[in-house]
Amino acid sequence: MAEIRIAFDAMGGDYAPAEIVKGAVEAANNNPDVKMILVGDQDAIKNELTGLTYNKDQVTIKHASEVITCEEAPVAAVRSKKDSSLVVAAKMLKTGEADAMISAGSTGAVLVGGQLMAGKIRGIKRAPLATMFPNVKGASLLLDCGANVDARPEHLVQFAKMGTIYLEHVVGVKNPKVGLVNIGVEEEKGNALVKETYPLLKETEGINFGGYVEARDVFDGEFDIILAEAFVGNVILKEAEGLANTIVKLLKQGLMSNLRSKMGAALAMPAIKETLKVFDASEYGGAPLLGLNGLVVKMHGNSTAKEVQAAVRQCINFKEQGINDKIREQFKK
Amino acid sequence: MAEIRIAFDAMGGDYAPAEIVKGAVEAANNNPDVKMILVGDQDAIKNELTGLTYNKDQVTIKHASEVITCEEAPVAAVRSKKDSSLVVAAKMLKTGEADAMISAGSTGAVLVGGQLMAGKIRGIKRAPLATMFPNVKGASLLLDCGANVDARPEHLVQFAKMGTIYLEHVVGVKNPKVGLVNIGVEEEKGNALVKETYPLLKETEGINFGGYVEARDVFDGEFDIILAEAFVGNVILKEAEGLANTIVKLLKQGLMSNLRSKMGAALAMPAIKETLKVFDASEYGGAPLLGLNGLVVKMHGNSTAKEVQAAVRQCINFKEQGINDKIREQFKK
Repeated sequence: MAEIRIAFDAMGGDYAPAEIVKGAVEAANNNPDVKMILVGDQDAIKNELTGLTYNKDQVTIKHASEVITCEEAPVAAVRSKKDSSLVVAAKMLKTGEADAMISAGSTGAVLVGGQLMAGKIRGIKRAPLATMFPNVKGASLLLDCGANVDARPEHLVQFAKMGTIYLEHVVGVKNPKVGLVNIGVEEEKGNALVKETYPLLKETEGINFGGYVEARDVFDGEFDIILAEAFVGNVILKEAEGLANTIVKLLKQGLMSNLRSKMGAALAMPAIKETLKVFDASEYGGAPLLGLNGLVVKMHGNSTAKEVQAAVRQCINFKEQGINDKIREQFKK
Repeated sequence: MAEIRIAFDAMGGDYAPAEIVKGAVEAANNNPDVKMILVGDQDAIKNELTGLTYNKDQVTIKHASEVITCEEAPVAAVRSKKDSSLVVAAKMLKTGEADAMISAGSTGAVLVGGQLMAGKIRGIKRAPLATMFPNVKGASLLLDCGANVDARPEHLVQFAKMGTIYLEHVVGVKNPKVGLVNIGVEEEKGNALVKETYPLLKETEGINFGGYVEARDVFDGEFDIILAEAFVGNVILKEAEGLANTIVKLLKQGLMSNLRSKMGAALAMPAIKETLKVFDASEYGGAPLLGLNGLVVKMHGNSTAKEVQAAVRQCINFKEQGINDKIREQFKK
């Protein structure tokens, strides 16, 4: 296996640097061929490394003096904080010092930093944020779930092509079926964007376009790729999260309403919790930003060492499968 | 109380004309001052009326020879089928022969028929479809949930004003708080539409604008009005429906996975069903299309006599509260 180098924004996230450093070290110990570069305040990182056991060739520190917080406006922060952990890590993708980067920092800053600092693959106009989205059969790939609002039809077509490559080779779904989110399934339904995108997708080679999908059906698992403009994709992602949490809360209240259901709840609650766990995004190792030089993986802000490990696995697959070479191949045509 | 006349598209819906006629008759018997006009094939309607007891002054038939089906393209159908039950009923709003109309027919045709045939109140540019949308505290008003894709900022402002009047006077929510759906809550977040709409809403008099709301938070009841462009509003509505159904299905499977949870499920299932009933839209009496001459109420295709009665109650409130006069008053300024 070729060497894989992963840059960590060690300062981004609710539990940074402790959990990021811990997760990186655990992943290094589990994957002897992978090099972890911890980017951020060197004293803070050294402090977290104290007491951990790891191969020193595999885990190194790259000092960065600044941190971008979630409160900062992303574009301004990325432009002004040139020595922030996030910007320094993203730049390592452009220079080729790293193959992938992982951040649990401000979503906006990761998106902006990824696009501006890592740079896009030649021919790619916008880099979409993709995420595994639960359905009754497992999960589908939802993209763009937040990176490029007001995208144009040709952007969505590129997203479908990149999503197909990613899903086939990183996740292992053969000939994934693409559904374009719309408010009806008939060809004449929808807004200007989807009506213009539909015929383009129909004639795009290398994807398996299955037509429109309504938001009520995204949980059926009929489509492997749920394709949407970023505003809509983000609404779909966040609504599922919000509703799943709300239903759990309502169930708990409802089940406590009388003795009979209280007893039932005590017996059934483990199964209820297990069932609703499919809506827990932390299982999927973060959301990849596709079409960049290298891979940017955005993790939830509340990520711990466990999620860092899942994100590392994703980076390894991405590199081993040569996803970016495959994307370049597609977009050369 | 002033006389109220309600026109029914007696031929629209999965259970038309039987359930529509039955619901109209029951509503007539419960509301002696309301006149019901059953629009559609007179033989079919007479047949359904046979055996029902009602005041003949209160329930009349207006013959219409055609029916618009859900399979037809809405605009073409509304334009070509001038003697369809839906078009004839909608025209009665324009001529003043009816104060409100109720249809369980094709959503697209009801939206088009309402806007084209009933006509808009002077000053109203687009007529949004509104619906009561469940949250943990009860329900909020979601609009536009499907009528006008690619709307402009000034349309959304009009929707907020009309939604405020409707919610205050039909539903009885004092000074309802308006949230504009966005993919973040910071003022600089979002697409071009919401960024242009935000400052307009801020300076609009007569509404209580509370800022942005993310899709994950629409269920917590902080906002009384969930304002969105129709594509996004429709996605929000349908995703909630789809996810609620999916979770029920998953829970049933999950709860059957072992004996302990099977026993628990048997005890807890009534409470679970009761809890999830808040996501059953049939309780709310259909979705009003606001800003037209008279009120158009769109019911679910699978509506029965029970839902017809709830829709009638909504029409009565709408008329008694003089909603359209209040809208005219607002838009005169």
